[in-house]
Amino acid sequence: MNRPAEASALAHSNIAFVKYWGNLVGDLRLPYNDSLSMNLSAAHTTTTVSFDPALASDHLSIDGNAHIGPALARVSRQLDLVRERAGIQTRASVASANSFPMGTGIASSASAFAALTLAACAAAGLSPSERELSCLARRGSGSAARSIPGGFVTWRAAAEDAESYAETVAPAEHWDLRDIVAIVSRQHKQLGSTGGHDAATRSPFFAARIAHSPDDYQAIHQALMDRDMARFGPAVEREAIALHAIAMTGDPPALYWSPETLALLHQVRAWRDAGLPVWFTLDAGPNVHLLCEARHADQLETELRRLDMVETYLHNRAAGPARLIQPDAPAAS
Amino acid sequence: MNRPAEASALAHSNIAFVKYWGNLVGDLRLPYNDSLSMNLSAAHTTTTVSFDPALASDHLSIDGNAHIGPALARVSRQLDLVRERAGIQTRASVASANSFPMGTGIASSASAFAALTLAACAAAGLSPSERELSCLARRGSGSAARSIPGGFVTWRAAAEDAESYAETVAPAEHWDLRDIVAIVSRQHKQLGSTGGHDAATRSPFFAARIAHSPDDYQAIHQALMDRDMARFGPAVEREAIALHAIAMTGDPPALYWSPETLALLHQVRAWRDAGLPVWFTLDAGPNVHLLCEARHADQLETELRRLDMVETYLHNRAAGPARLIQPDAPAAS
Repeated sequence: MNRPAEASALAHSNIAFVKYWGNLVGDLRLPYNDSLSMNLSAAHTTTTVSFDPALASDHLSIDGNAHIGPALARVSRQLDLVRERAGIQTRASVASANSFPMGTGIASSASAFAALTLAACAAAGLSPSERELSCLARRGSGSAARSIPGGFVTWRAAAEDAESYAETVAPAEHWDLRDIVAIVSRQHKQLGSTGGHDAATRSPFFAARIAHSPDDYQAIHQALMDRDMARFGPAVEREAIALHAIAMTGDPPALYWSPETLALLHQVRAWRDAGLPVWFTLDAGPNVHLLCEARHADQLETELRRLDMVETYLHNRAAGPARLIQPDAPAAS
Repeated sequence: MNRPAEASALAHSNIAFVKYWGNLVGDLRLPYNDSLSMNLSAAHTTTTVSFDPALASDHLSIDGNAHIGPALARVSRQLDLVRERAGIQTRASVASANSFPMGTGIASSASAFAALTLAACAAAGLSPSERELSCLARRGSGSAARSIPGGFVTWRAAAEDAESYAETVAPAEHWDLRDIVAIVSRQHKQLGSTGGHDAATRSPFFAARIAHSPDDYQAIHQALMDRDMARFGPAVEREAIALHAIAMTGDPPALYWSPETLALLHQVRAWRDAGLPVWFTLDAGPNVHLLCEARHADQLETELRRLDMVETYLHNRAAGPARLIQPDAPAAS
């Protein structure tokens, strides 16, 4: 490898309906429980990786800003996994761009590590299977495993590195479900997900959550397969609240909600009482993911535009898998 | 009993540091776990009970307004317990007044049923012991058991009616702890406590909470005995958050917090970061109980007056036991 070897990839973030929270084996990001998600059409990361023999160390830019310190170290560890498999030592330059704000409950690390892993493998001349890619992406960020396959995705808990990967349970076309993310705050969250996973396992309720998880998974998976919003919505809300109950009783406790988050949770119930069938879920951050079927999306957007507390919103459909793109290609969803 | 037999009583509400949530035996309000509380000097109910042979049914007025329906039925059931013990059938007129808004997380039912029980017993010619009074008050509202004794109070879980009563663990003078209740909403809560207790037992985390409760009780009780705010405050906050985690994962879920509640929880952490040693607890409602030692209370009040979201506040010290008063006597705390 004497000249730069470059590849670009695009990956979508995903929203989990059954959440991943807590690692059985932290270093390998092997989760305690199965999770279930949908890729998000309007939330994606495009990443270009160039292995360049002229570089003395890895470089990282995100949305045009150079990053050093922990962010670069985490990317370098991920590149090391790829270099190890490819048998190379070459340092790389990584340029990444997000279509959405980072660190606010939209899983930027999911799309970022999925795109990084795919681009790095291609640039290094590797051609891993989707399953291998998913395992590898998981090492950088657990939920990145779910951003490799397309559509609606399951990620199985397993005790072995090679067994904990994600795969499609239904293609994006299966159900025209919408996830309209109401962005109430662009503040970067105080406790990152990695620390949050660790703190959660010290919640007095963590063991009970894991014990109940297979039942929750089964109910939500079946409602998704049946496209039954009346069962899906309430079960997904309960799952999200349970995750936050674990986070806020963790050690240290993590209260990801802002006042605006809570105002929106109450608003969702008021909308339902008024006949608009919308449910919520939340990742580890203040923004609220509003779930509805396609035929109610226009009305929901109209309602959202009336709320001062919502800075902006991101309207998502189910999206496809991570894919290689031409460098500098427009990042179409 | 041919003419009205009348008595008046005053009882303080209380704030629990180890909460009561969930009944082992619902009708008897026998709790799952030991709880620990402080009587609140500024939050009290005064109640006059007149057994009057001229009445065909019980009458109830609260803060000058006549009540019928569920509120009156609950008071009548409590009066029945007293009538049964006294061997009388006479109907009563009950007039009650609160020094604080009802249904917003200050336990109005605690002070109300403590005052009602004491006044009704006296008017009926009974002279129960403090222990008997506490058991009897518990039948009307669980936390009312704790509003019978004075100061800092423990209420033991037990499987038998006569064994589940509250008693003083330290007099009011033991520690000049302040509970400044920031009232962010006078809205009546949607789910009353009785329904909330029932819903909580269906949380997937309920069993874990009960299993951990003795350890929490031990730690908080010891910190209270030692007047050690640095241990007391964090443990009390964790206990309160755990209660709300149970409530929000109950069936049906109960989200008692308003946006202003959450803004205050974040504010408390900001105050601590800035060097003001204040911790919070919350009952089943949106208002926030701010706990500090006497020497920090002035500064905390100054800070509170700057916050638009706080409608008003109630500054409490530890208060004495429920007591008989002269009808129409001023309700001094």
